[in-house]
Amino acid sequence: MAGKVSIFLISPTYEKLLSAAVIAQGAVAEGMEVFIFLSFAQVAFRRGEVERFSKLGKDYEEYRDAAMKYLSQRNVSWHSMLRDAKREGKVRVVACSLVADMLGLKKEDFDPGLVDDVAGVATFLSEAASSDVILYI
Amino acid sequence: MAGKVSIFLISPTYEKLLSAAVIAQGAVAEGMEVFIFLSFAQVAFRRGEVERFSKLGKDYEEYRDAAMKYLSQRNVSWHSMLRDAKREGKVRVVACSLVADMLGLKKEDFDPGLVDDVAGVATFLSEAASSDVILYI
Amino acid sequence: MAGKVSIFLISPTYEKLLSAAVIAQGAVAEGMEVFIFLSFAQVAFRRGEVERFSKLGKDYEEYRDAAMKYLSQRNVSWHSMLRDAKREGKVRVVACSLVADMLGLKKEDFDPGLVDDVAGVATFLSEAASSDVILYI
Repeated sequence: MAGKVSIFLISPTYEKLLSAAVIAQGAVAEGMEVFIFLSFAQVAFRRGEVERFSKLGKDYEEYRDAAMKYLSQRNVSWHSMLRDAKREGKVRVVACSLVADMLGLKKEDFDPGLVDDVAGVATFLSEAASSDVILYI
Repeated sequence: MAGKVSIFLISPTYEKLLSAAVIAQGAVAEGMEVFIFLSFAQVAFRRGEVERFSKLGKDYEEYRDAAMKYLSQRNVSWHSMLRDAKREGKVRVVACSLVADMLGLKKEDFDPGLVDDVAGVATFLSEAASSDVILYI
Repeated sequence: MAGKVSIFLISPTYEKLLSAAVIAQGAVAEGMEVFIFLSFAQVAFRRGEVERFSKLGKDYEEYRDAAMKYLSQRNVSWHSMLRDAKREGKVRVVACSLVADMLGLKKEDFDPGLVDDVAGVATFLSEAASSDVILYI
């Protein structure tokens, strides 16, 4: 299956990072390209923050133990899955420049193995308009 | 209006189940097919849980009374609407196998009147890629 | 870039209103049409409520100070951005009639500078099916 998946990733919470990573990995396995635009979720992609980010959404706290046990048994995480997807296929990750400005973040503040660039919402719209699957996560 | 609506239903909260059911019913009424992929939302589709599931998202608690009054006056609920949609049109509901593994759930744990199958994210991507409307709820 | 962006705006929280407004403004700047369907988010569009609505999602409370400082320094808000987008391009905003019924709201209860009409979910599906980018926010 060819085509492209575009994700607008706003949620700065573990279960949504995991969901985006699983979808990205699945898309790459199907031969699809992936574009991820990081809105507030970019806080989890800061250098030094990636490995320790563990904030779960308020509506998902009761699933923490089940999720963490599952992931640790398989020795995976949202960021290892995303790195794998980037290695195995075409996955581009861009941080939203408006949110970066808001939070005082610059390109060098992000993990260079995960974030490729910083750009405005026009970049997301352009990628999305040529995508087969668009998700606001 | 022909076409297909695909929903990635992650949120395990009443207002999102209701929103998905209203959209499914509206789509069927318009002659559209519906595909729903249950991520964490699958917890509400367990046998014996469907009727009593009442957890509202933290950002929606102030609307509980208005919503419940509206629904009980009309004698409807998210699951009655979804059952109606399945009866009146083509609505397929699939539980995500990764989340089912995580939570220790198997196909027989789900309400057979609501959930048709358990499958991986590739199934969602394939359905979504051929859909006219894709929603991550 | 021609085309249309359709947004199903359910979240009654500031960060999602802001996200929708930024996307609407970006879309208009790119020459795209915008359609916004207000589910529970319609509470923020009531006359007299627009200017004072300040409820942030539970998962975003730690970003309140950074966001408010950024917006006040630039003298913008979700509603000023949305008004600008409506002035500069084709942006139609419709409140969901089911949620309006649930909350006891009528067309005259909404800010007439922001909300164009009240209609059912079939209107959203029809707009979405002819859109290039569809987002459930």
